[in-house]
Amino acid sequence: MALIVQKYGGTSVGSTERIRNVARRVAHYRKQGHDVVVVVSAMAGETNRLLGLAKELSERPDPRELDVIAATGEQVTIGLLAIALQEMGVPARSYTGGQVRILTDDAYTKARILEIDESRMRADLKAGKVVIVAGFQGVDKDGNITTLGRGGSDTSGVALAAALKADECQIYTDVDGVYTTDPRIVPEARRLDTITFEEMLELASQGSKVLQIRSVEFAGKYLVKLRVLSSLDDPESNAPGTLITFEEDDKMEQAIISGIAFNRDEAKISVMGVPDKPGIAYAILGPVAAANLDVDMIVQNIGASGHTDFSFTVNRNEYQKTLDVLSAARGKNFEAREIIGDNRIAKVSVVGIGMRSHVGLASKMFKALADEGINIQMISTSEIKIAVVIDEKYLELAVRVLHKAFELEQGG
Amino acid sequence: MALIVQKYGGTSVGSTERIRNVARRVAHYRKQGHDVVVVVSAMAGETNRLLGLAKELSERPDPRELDVIAATGEQVTIGLLAIALQEMGVPARSYTGGQVRILTDDAYTKARILEIDESRMRADLKAGKVVIVAGFQGVDKDGNITTLGRGGSDTSGVALAAALKADECQIYTDVDGVYTTDPRIVPEARRLDTITFEEMLELASQGSKVLQIRSVEFAGKYLVKLRVLSSLDDPESNAPGTLITFEEDDKMEQAIISGIAFNRDEAKISVMGVPDKPGIAYAILGPVAAANLDVDMIVQNIGASGHTDFSFTVNRNEYQKTLDVLSAARGKNFEAREIIGDNRIAKVSVVGIGMRSHVGLASKMFKALADEGINIQMISTSEIKIAVVIDEKYLELAVRVLHKAFELEQGG
Repeated sequence: MALIVQKYGGTSVGSTERIRNVARRVAHYRKQGHDVVVVVSAMAGETNRLLGLAKELSERPDPRELDVIAATGEQVTIGLLAIALQEMGVPARSYTGGQVRILTDDAYTKARILEIDESRMRADLKAGKVVIVAGFQGVDKDGNITTLGRGGSDTSGVALAAALKADECQIYTDVDGVYTTDPRIVPEARRLDTITFEEMLELASQGSKVLQIRSVEFAGKYLVKLRVLSSLDDPESNAPGTLITFEEDDKMEQAIISGIAFNRDEAKISVMGVPDKPGIAYAILGPVAAANLDVDMIVQNIGASGHTDFSFTVNRNEYQKTLDVLSAARGKNFEAREIIGDNRIAKVSVVGIGMRSHVGLASKMFKALADEGINIQMISTSEIKIAVVIDEKYLELAVRVLHKAFELEQGG
Repeated sequence: MALIVQKYGGTSVGSTERIRNVARRVAHYRKQGHDVVVVVSAMAGETNRLLGLAKELSERPDPRELDVIAATGEQVTIGLLAIALQEMGVPARSYTGGQVRILTDDAYTKARILEIDESRMRADLKAGKVVIVAGFQGVDKDGNITTLGRGGSDTSGVALAAALKADECQIYTDVDGVYTTDPRIVPEARRLDTITFEEMLELASQGSKVLQIRSVEFAGKYLVKLRVLSSLDDPESNAPGTLITFEEDDKMEQAIISGIAFNRDEAKISVMGVPDKPGIAYAILGPVAAANLDVDMIVQNIGASGHTDFSFTVNRNEYQKTLDVLSAARGKNFEAREIIGDNRIAKVSVVGIGMRSHVGLASKMFKALADEGINIQMISTSEIKIAVVIDEKYLELAVRVLHKAFELEQGG
């Protein structure tokens, strides 16, 4: 008898047949005696269709009105899922974000949840009903409809789980859990039974696109137990998925490395021959930040003869803009011999909570890459991650050799 | 400087191009200095699409959830129209029924409006904004979404006009006003500049499908000035449409007859040879009413030798069911020699407020029909209407000869 929040994305509710499948899964959990709150996205394609209509009328539509339009996508799904459940004899009741009431700030199209009133949901659960809530949406204090931005349904699910103090928040996707790396690149990639919140955060931000990073942060903040599961599995299979934990148990000790993350969404920029003196990092990155450009990795080499080289990565889409900003700032904000860049790079990271108490992992990683002749262009480390930038043509090879070097196919 | 409520149906907002056209019309009224509140339906076809999805999941979907789903249709339109207006530089703000707040009872799919809070709309109008409201919907006292049933957007428009004490409620349709009869049958049919509320009520209930009858009743109750206009006209044409008035002015005196209404939605049933005694009408119609069957015309002939014939009309779709109900009641509730029926009838009515003070109109009508050899099967009269039932094959002929007999093509 647990209280479970389940979240289903657009593909999982993409047709009435799939909605019926979701209803079967919910009914299965109900039959096991659990209380269930379901959070759903709009049917696949619907949000794009709606925003497309708005774009036909204006290049830059008013965000408030965009939210009024976009919020209807989830509203249709909640009604349909309620009907599907009722048809199976399972009492159910739908709620829009406003009806719940999920209070947000008024940052239309990217609002943040401030508060959730869980009283109506509790009353329904107590009355034996499944509660169905529209994801991705809320209302501001004046009753205006807001949306949380793309992928916000994950956040809705986690926030509802937090408000209800649910035993578990299950996120249903088209994969059956979190893998040691992308199985399309490494067929031996293995589903992890558990992963820590911090590892998940690294994996998500590094390109394992299973969960919205904001929802994972949210889960961490409110200690919500998150589980990633597949909505494509048989509704009655009881497949375990991957549990995201906040405690490091004994099992964690053994699994030094959880997975290999990677992305090719970034570009590298190097400012060469800048004076090696205090304030230089700010002189270079200040103009970049002022232009609203997100910087990921930052590396500064040890200076020689009073000069140093300063490198960082930005989103690949913002590569040219960043170069332009730096050109304009050069000579004004800082002096440099040369500004060079490369947008054909990839980032590969080895992630693991066990890294904290183990040494020699970095050299193991560097040796594995060196053995294949893969040159490392940048290195950045955190407590639970070692990330390197390499030529993007070596990306798949690098992921495969690292997966093998750390014996990830064998399990923890 | 008037306050105008405009209502646009599904066809008028059926595409982004048409929504832009509506925006142009609204902008035109704004430019003339008027305050405008716009009520819109769902884009044509959208409500059917949404209800179709629900039907895929259940033969008899929960009405509460149906309303959650159906209400999204209008919600999309309000957002799109707001964006279209803003794109033209006209400040605008959209509201769902719940946001306004249009309070209804909780009779899902056919709710009735109880109360409208006009404070937010007034504030927006005062700030120079066009207010856009989703038609067809409201919320009950617990915040559940309700809909007013098909065609309910007309009622929303009138109710908002009443709440705001608007100078005029303009209903935009695909015709440019109310005609003396259907121009497809009588090419000489003439658009009426004005028509009284009572005449409109008769015309609407008799089959002139320009306005929802409930909205006309509503307008009469709250003395809302209603105007029927075409949304297909040039937005800046200032076409006058037809004004529905509640005062009988001098002009009315001249126009004895306003129009010819007709329908072929009914069937006739006659209960022959029933005892001519008190209570017989109730004995026959009681079971019919108990079965929720709507009766329109009722005629009882003068009895001979202690027996009489009792005839009435019902909706043609309910013809067989009515016959079944009567067969079951015969011998139990009443005695009768025979029960016969005919579902190939048509009803033709001559409608006019001037009828009250003029005599000889009925005989003029009957003579015109007799001259063409059209047999009258039933007659029913009210203060402003004479209705006859005839064989449906004569319908078009009857409408044409009556239009000519009363010289409706010449105007009042």
